[in-house]
Amino acid sequence: MIGVIGAGQLGRMLALAGYPLGQQCLFLDPASGAPASALAPQIVAPFTDAARLAQLAARTEVLTFDWENVSVESLRALGRGVRIRPPVAALAAAQDRVREKRLFEQLAIPTTRWQAVDSPRSLQRALRGIGLPAVLKTRRLGYDGKGQAVVRTAAEAMQALAGLGGVPLLYEELVPFDFEVSVIAARSTRGEVVVYPLNRNLHAGGILRLTRAPGGGPALQRQAARYVRRLLEHFRYAGVLTLEFFVRRGRLLANEMAPRVHNSGHWTIEGAVTSQFENHLRAILGLPLGAAAAVGHAAMINLLGRMPPRERVLAQAGVHLHDYGKQERPGRKLGHCTIVAATARDRDARVRALLAVVDPELKMR
Amino acid sequence: MIGVIGAGQLGRMLALAGYPLGQQCLFLDPASGAPASALAPQIVAPFTDAARLAQLAARTEVLTFDWENVSVESLRALGRGVRIRPPVAALAAAQDRVREKRLFEQLAIPTTRWQAVDSPRSLQRALRGIGLPAVLKTRRLGYDGKGQAVVRTAAEAMQALAGLGGVPLLYEELVPFDFEVSVIAARSTRGEVVVYPLNRNLHAGGILRLTRAPGGGPALQRQAARYVRRLLEHFRYAGVLTLEFFVRRGRLLANEMAPRVHNSGHWTIEGAVTSQFENHLRAILGLPLGAAAAVGHAAMINLLGRMPPRERVLAQAGVHLHDYGKQERPGRKLGHCTIVAATARDRDARVRALLAVVDPELKMR
Repeated sequence: MIGVIGAGQLGRMLALAGYPLGQQCLFLDPASGAPASALAPQIVAPFTDAARLAQLAARTEVLTFDWENVSVESLRALGRGVRIRPPVAALAAAQDRVREKRLFEQLAIPTTRWQAVDSPRSLQRALRGIGLPAVLKTRRLGYDGKGQAVVRTAAEAMQALAGLGGVPLLYEELVPFDFEVSVIAARSTRGEVVVYPLNRNLHAGGILRLTRAPGGGPALQRQAARYVRRLLEHFRYAGVLTLEFFVRRGRLLANEMAPRVHNSGHWTIEGAVTSQFENHLRAILGLPLGAAAAVGHAAMINLLGRMPPRERVLAQAGVHLHDYGKQERPGRKLGHCTIVAATARDRDARVRALLAVVDPELKMR
Repeated sequence: MIGVIGAGQLGRMLALAGYPLGQQCLFLDPASGAPASALAPQIVAPFTDAARLAQLAARTEVLTFDWENVSVESLRALGRGVRIRPPVAALAAAQDRVREKRLFEQLAIPTTRWQAVDSPRSLQRALRGIGLPAVLKTRRLGYDGKGQAVVRTAAEAMQALAGLGGVPLLYEELVPFDFEVSVIAARSTRGEVVVYPLNRNLHAGGILRLTRAPGGGPALQRQAARYVRRLLEHFRYAGVLTLEFFVRRGRLLANEMAPRVHNSGHWTIEGAVTSQFENHLRAILGLPLGAAAAVGHAAMINLLGRMPPRERVLAQAGVHLHDYGKQERPGRKLGHCTIVAATARDRDARVRALLAVVDPELKMR
């Protein structure tokens, strides 16, 4: 049995990937009836509940997590006898934007210019040193565009400093990028590594809306694989790691990492030889990894806020629906659709047809 | 919610296909801890328990089944208000080899010569009319080669008549076939039909060991599709239907039908655009069907009796493991492996490599 902290849709898809391998997941999540709980047992408890975390660890052979805002302190308190994969050090780095930036620099992974900011004075320094426009982000607990503000003037920057609630911040140059990509890779406890084809990602309102893969040429793919491998080896990592980039004039600039399976890799369920979920489980169990090659040209469209009529989605040829079983709520990730086509052109035509049904306002770029 | 009678590995794979569609299965099975129960709720009750069947029907929007030895009488007793898909008439035909043969004849689906036998006298008639060698099979409740005997002399036939326990039998010519295939098709409540590529099946000891697909040329595929469509339309069928054939000199002879998802279609999980499990659910829910096209050249190898070491199976490139979570027992179906390759030649090379690990005695023909 595998212990999973967090029972959201990522956990649900981990559980679905586990059964064919003969593995059941046991979840811990404070929300009763979380998406994964429909198909696997769940301990309902806060993420910081030391006793229930210890119980989860005692009942399972390895602990993992399906989101990155898990308490590092609570995990460290479990002691050395508990196998936690990916390593807690990777989780700690991903939770703190300043540590993450320093890590990128240490490993010579190009990233945007940045400065830590926690006062009007340090903000002034950042304004002078980095300039405008820029993004102010909370150092911790940001996701899906939450906890950040784009600032175009010094006055906006001072407002944002106040608006983000007096917590430590990161001031980062706003990069005029051509497009965004992410790379997903897995490293097993045996040191085996596989790297998936690049995901080309389209965000709107800070939330991922559309991913297409393979999403970059061989030069970008090589760069991305090189950078993500540095992170994997640095942590002697086990599991799936995601690294997001801005692409500008054919060069990658690391934006952030996520020490887990990732929304931009959902297409791998149908579109790759082995899904990111299966490879995450294989990696943390010390099993041989499966091939990460794409089987065609894939796209993934997130279903946000409101589920489209199932009939209309499935009437589109070759569309796969993934319904997370969640209540509708504006902006909430309720599910996704995947398309796999023989050519990028055919894929894009089918994406357009599907967007007309599920997300008519999104413009594919 | 979908009610499923039978919670074996087929039910388990139906449940796994249901979750992404936002559908949960509720099972009824007498064996507590049946394979599907790891990931979906199960009512533990005999298949003929009228009260618990009624409860299953009341809690679900449609009833289906994962094996064909479900009691037709118990289903009919549920009354007209309960949606049962596939139709009970198809189940009744599949349960009785004599009715099945008559149906094939009625629909002009070529089949082997046969005669009903229930006494030494009728056996003598069959021996004279059809001759030897032949197969004696129980009219009802046969599966995986159980309840049948090959007879090569009149004395053997008399022995088999006694040995099969005095139940009604079918006497059937033993066809010297070139190979065996099956065709899987789905028809939805809306009348939409999709037909999968032929499965080329290798049995040993009466149990399916290896399937390769696509498993026949276009002429065989057309014949098979024509025959299975006749059955689908005859029953105004909803769900997946499987029809097994002997192939002799390029012609198909129907052997038997199964009104359900089928072991020979397990490769469709990775090897077809839409799996047989997903299409069964779509069909009985009245949703549009997904494409049944193959995405490559697939093979499925059953894992019988003893699970091979997971590490060795997964170390083979591109192999997908499906562990049903069952206790080991000689001859028991514990899981299967799937391979999908770009060419039939590559597929067969990989089948040979995998057989060396999981089933070294099986010779691929």
